[in-house]
This record gives sequence, structure tokens and C-alpha cells, in this order.
Amino acid sequence: MLRRLNAAAVLRVLYEAQSLTLTELVQSTAVTRATVENALAGLTEQSWVEEVAPDADGPRQVGRPAKRYRFRAEAGCVLGLDIGVHTVRAVVTDLKGEVLGVRHTAVTPGLPGAERIAAARVLGRRALRGCDRTTAEVRAVGIGTTGIVDASGKVTLSALLPDWAGTDLCAALAEPFDAPVVVGNDSKLAALGEHWKGAAAAARDVLYIHAGRGISAGMLIDAKVHAGRRGAAGEIGNLPASRWHTAPARLLGWTGEGQGDAEALFAAVRERDPRALRILEQYADDLVQGVAAMVLALDPELVVVGGGVARAGDLLLDPLRSRLDGLVLFPVEVVASTLGDRSVALGAVRLALDEVEKQLFEVASRG
Amino acid sequence: MLRRLNAAAVLRVLYEAQSLTLTELVQSTAVTRATVENALAGLTEQSWVEEVAPDADGPRQVGRPAKRYRFRAEAGCVLGLDIGVHTVRAVVTDLKGEVLGVRHTAVTPGLPGAERIAAARVLGRRALRGCDRTTAEVRAVGIGTTGIVDASGKVTLSALLPDWAGTDLCAALAEPFDAPVVVGNDSKLAALGEHWKGAAAAARDVLYIHAGRGISAGMLIDAKVHAGRRGAAGEIGNLPASRWHTAPARLLGWTGEGQGDAEALFAAVRERDPRALRILEQYADDLVQGVAAMVLALDPELVVVGGGVARAGDLLLDPLRSRLDGLVLFPVEVVASTLGDRSVALGAVRLALDEVEKQLFEVASRG
Repeated sequence: MLRRLNAAAVLRVLYEAQSLTLTELVQSTAVTRATVENALAGLTEQSWVEEVAPDADGPRQVGRPAKRYRFRAEAGCVLGLDIGVHTVRAVVTDLKGEVLGVRHTAVTPGLPGAERIAAARVLGRRALRGCDRTTAEVRAVGIGTTGIVDASGKVTLSALLPDWAGTDLCAALAEPFDAPVVVGNDSKLAALGEHWKGAAAAARDVLYIHAGRGISAGMLIDAKVHAGRRGAAGEIGNLPASRWHTAPARLLGWTGEGQGDAEALFAAVRERDPRALRILEQYADDLVQGVAAMVLALDPELVVVGGGVARAGDLLLDPLRSRLDGLVLFPVEVVASTLGDRSVALGAVRLALDEVEKQLFEVASRG
Repeated sequence: MLRRLNAAAVLRVLYEAQSLTLTELVQSTAVTRATVENALAGLTEQSWVEEVAPDADGPRQVGRPAKRYRFRAEAGCVLGLDIGVHTVRAVVTDLKGEVLGVRHTAVTPGLPGAERIAAARVLGRRALRGCDRTTAEVRAVGIGTTGIVDASGKVTLSALLPDWAGTDLCAALAEPFDAPVVVGNDSKLAALGEHWKGAAAAARDVLYIHAGRGISAGMLIDAKVHAGRRGAAGEIGNLPASRWHTAPARLLGWTGEGQGDAEALFAAVRERDPRALRILEQYADDLVQGVAAMVLALDPELVVVGGGVARAGDLLLDPLRSRLDGLVLFPVEVVASTLGDRSVALGAVRLALDEVEKQLFEVASRG
């Protein structure tokens, strides 16, 4: 027990640093030199840690340089999946979150749930192969998906995919990847992704708005996803006054179903086509109702807007900002997502990494 | 430094227990017997701790019973103030939150800010005298007030008392009570009060709705007040669609300005007076719009409704519940405040006690 505790302490210190000497490890862990040496031997044998080759280009030192050790981020990997209505996305990272591979595949809204899951499995394997990883190396799988996800990871409700309700993604994906699976709502994980690697890195209370063929919201409070009792926090779109359920259809009145048509709209807006401008402003008119309600409810530090329509950038955000300022008590900063269509999958990776950290470092509480 | 640290550790353990023996203190603090004895001597000299008289009625023991020690909750007191539009309220408690005295006084909406503050000062002193306490014994003052309160405790905006904006209650009340002052928005502190001693004791994510001559909201997330970046979380009433700014006036159309008239309305509702029933249902119709928005935004565990109109109890809550169920995704429990008009002042006391605990126990971080 104590031995595992010491090994976990050494591993955590190494995980948070680049590389450390034995002396530095003794200082950081506050245990004896012999204990650290012992832990390092065990961790090296288990391939979690390795000695770093002395830097040949480094400054010359008198005598032999002290040995350095590092956490082997390549000792495993995590898989982040974004299982959406039109697209499934996979991101593979090492254990420190360095992206190793990315894949995506188109799916249709009408695809039955079992086939959507199968598509995610296939894509996950393909993403792993693409970066020379095997399923055996996967330490955790994180999944972001459309709909309400409860605390156990089950989808309980989905407005966009009615047959998605009842889906247990933990059960469906734990077996093929032989790893723990953690699941969250896509917009909530997008908020987490943007905080981890994107537009919201400096904020702890974050409202994320997905503005695409659907509109939805997710939030972080004190840098953690606030999911709510049923996982339904952010579902302001359920209120007809938010206009979130009707806004995308009005936009699609111009663009049709395809991605290309949305680009055509943005192009027309850039050329100051009056009808296109009116449509985008109308979308901002609709969008702002629910955004204002969420901002008034939470008073966040930052609003990040992602999703397909957010690719219009300031063409959408400027009308949104000016309308929002008129509805809320204090102006709030509104920025575009910097992760784009990877925000959900990267949030899912972050969730998976939290699970890995738990496995590696929470020895004490797991007994 | 180490001596103060040990004293703080001993004091904290005693604070959280009824009374403890020397042996129990050694076990709980994990320091030596001599160190605990030393700390107890110092704390007793400073009147924070005293030896408890052996319980004469207790079970007979062989030999002399072990000495017991307790934290002297009466070693100081805290003052909680609720500075509102129509009423100022004061609650005095000992250092463990036991209520020693309560006072209130009527004020008018037109009273200038300086006089409102003076009324709070006078009432605070009166409440202290009423329970034989002096201002010198006050360890902290907590204040809940109407309007937006920023992180520094300043009122930045007030819809109901326009001249209240800019008020610095910390500065105004620290001097007369010679104690640190902490300030928060009234509905946010009501949520805290209900969690501490009222209807929300079992919930950590709580939405509190004040339904009175004004309507407002406050919330706890993970048992802590979520104030937001500007202290403006919960201000959904700013959205015209919430109908919160117009609903009370419609109610007052029946009741007039006086408290008695509200009671007359409730009495008429109890007698199934059709016009009175319609007015209360209309109020529920209005109220539910903003409540639904807040519930959809946060997905709380519990909604607590307080304020003057909440005194109608289920006559208001039943129509509110049925309408709310139709607007949200998952039914949420809606209960009446159990603290009534003391919820804000008790939340302010809780805030003040947090400040006292910081003073007493956070020796380490204060150096």
C-alpha cells in the first residue's frame, strides 16, 4: 500500500514536469532518497518512467551530469470520440494530451443507433492504426455526444436523434477498446475542450454556445463542467422564447442541407448580399435570446461560440455582440471557438485523461 | 509560526466537536500530547477554550474522569444584516451560529442611502444590546442587500433603489462595529441561508427564488454561492420575456402596497374567491417564465421559493409546479422557504461565520 502510494507520488511529480533528477524528485515528494529510487525502479520496470539521455548539446558540466527521469507519455494513449448527428470524429492523444491522430467520417441523421455506434468503433480503430497505436494501448475512452447524458454516462434524451435515448455508450465501447469509457454531452465537452486547449484557456466560468444545424449550450463553472442533476444544464433551448429550436431551420431555408450551402451563405454575406446579410442577422436575432438568458443566469467570464455557423466569424459574432449588449446587465466578451470542429473530441480527450490521472494517481482512495 | 499553526489545529478540532478530552485531541490533531497541552494553555488564556465541568449526571466512572475541553462559542458573536427596500433585519448569533437575538425595522423605498445605512447601524446595535452583547464582541458582520454586489462588496446596480448603486457597505459598517464586513446580494445569501438552516439543507445545487414585491433569484452550485463575474448571476429578470419586472405590479393591483393586503389576497384565495385565485395564478404564470429559464440553465436539485408571496404556500407553489413541469425537461422539486423573512439575514450570518473561520483557522496562509 505505502509502496504504491510512494510510486504514485513520484509518478505524479514526473507527470507534471518535463524531466527531473533524483534530487529534485526527493525534494518534490518529501520522501527519502531510497524510497524514490525504489519507486523509480518499479515504475521503470512497468515502462511508466525512463531515464532521459543526457543532452549532448546542453551546457558542459564538471563531472558526470545527474541522471534525469521522465514520465513516458507514450506509455499509453487515450481516444476521444465525438458522436454527432452528421459526423463522427476521433482524436488520439498520448497520456499528456499531445495529439497523435485525427479522423472523421460522415453519418446521416437517419442512421440507427447501433450503426452509429459501429461507425464510432470503426473510426476509433482507424484513428489508432493511423498513428501506429493498438487498442491494447488505450488507457481510457472519452465520448461527447448529442443529447442529455446522465451521471452514469447514459443518453436519456435526444431532440435530434430520437432513437439515441437509452444508449449506453460506456457499455457499447468499453469492450472493443478494453478501457474505461467516460461520456458527456457534446456542448459541455466542447466548453471543456476550449478551456483546455482553445479560446477559453484563461477563463474558469465559461459559456459555450454551439451554433450550427442545432443550437445548444454547455458551461464550465470554476473550470469544471456543470452538468446539473440530470445532466440537463444549459438546455435553455427547450424554452420556446429562446427561439433556438426554430433558428437553424430558418438559416437552412437559404443554405439547404449541405455544408457547401452554408459556405455559399457566408460568401454572399462577405459580398454584402442584402438577403444573405438579413438571414445571418435574423439568425443572430434568434440566437441572442437564449444566449442572453444563459448569460443573465450565469454571469460567465467568457462566451465561446462554436459550430458550423460560427465559421462565419465576426459576420455572425458582431451582430450577436451588439444585440447581447442590449439585453444583459454587463457586457460580456464573446469570442469564436479556436478548436472548431475538434472542440468536442478534444473535450472528450480531456475527460478521458482525467480518468487516466485518477487510475494512476488516486491509489490511496482506491485502496 | 508553528505554535500558532498547532493552536489553530487544536481550535478547529474543538470547534467542530462538542467537547473533547486531551487524548481525543491528540488523536485528532496528530501532534504530541505536550504540544496539545501547550496549545490548550494558550487558547484558554485567550478565552477561546475552556475546561468543561464534569457532568454530574453522567455515568459513574472508576477514578477521576478525564478533563474535557470545549470551544467557547460565546467568545464572540457575529451580526447578520438584511438591508432591503422595505425592511432592515438583524440577526446576532454566537460563533457556532446559535441565534441570540433578532430585530427588524421598517424603512421606506424613498429613504436616502445614507439614512438606510444609519438605520442598519442603529438596528445592529439594538440587536446586540438585546442579547447583552457589545460591538467589541462582534467578530464579523455579514450583509445581504438588494441589487448587484461585486466581488469587493460594493453595490454596483439596483433596480429597486436607484441611489443604492455605488454604496460601499464594507466601508460604511466596518467602523461602527470594528469588525470585518462581508457583503452579498440578498437572494444569493437567502440561498445560502436555506442551505445552512432551512429548506435546502440536503441539496448542493440550489435555485432560490424571491417572490415578493420584487422577483429575483440566487443560486448555490456545489453548496457555494455562484455570484458570477460581476455578481450578476441569476439576473434573468432583466429579460422582458421573464416577466419578473412586471408580475409584482399586477399582484399589487389587488393588494395595494401594504402587507395586510397581501394577506387579504391569500385569505380570499383560501376562500376560493375566483378573482383572487385568478390573480395568484396569473402571478404564477408570470413567475414561471423566469423560473423555467433558470431551471433549464442550471438543472438544480431543488428550487426554494421565498419572499412575501411565497407565504401563500401551496396556493402559489401548486400552480407554479404544474406550469414549470410543462416547460422544463425533467421535473424538479419546488419547496417553500422554511426560514421565511430571516433567510437573507441568516445567509449573511453564514457569510460572516465563514469569515470568522478564516480568521481563526487559516493561520498558515496568513503567515
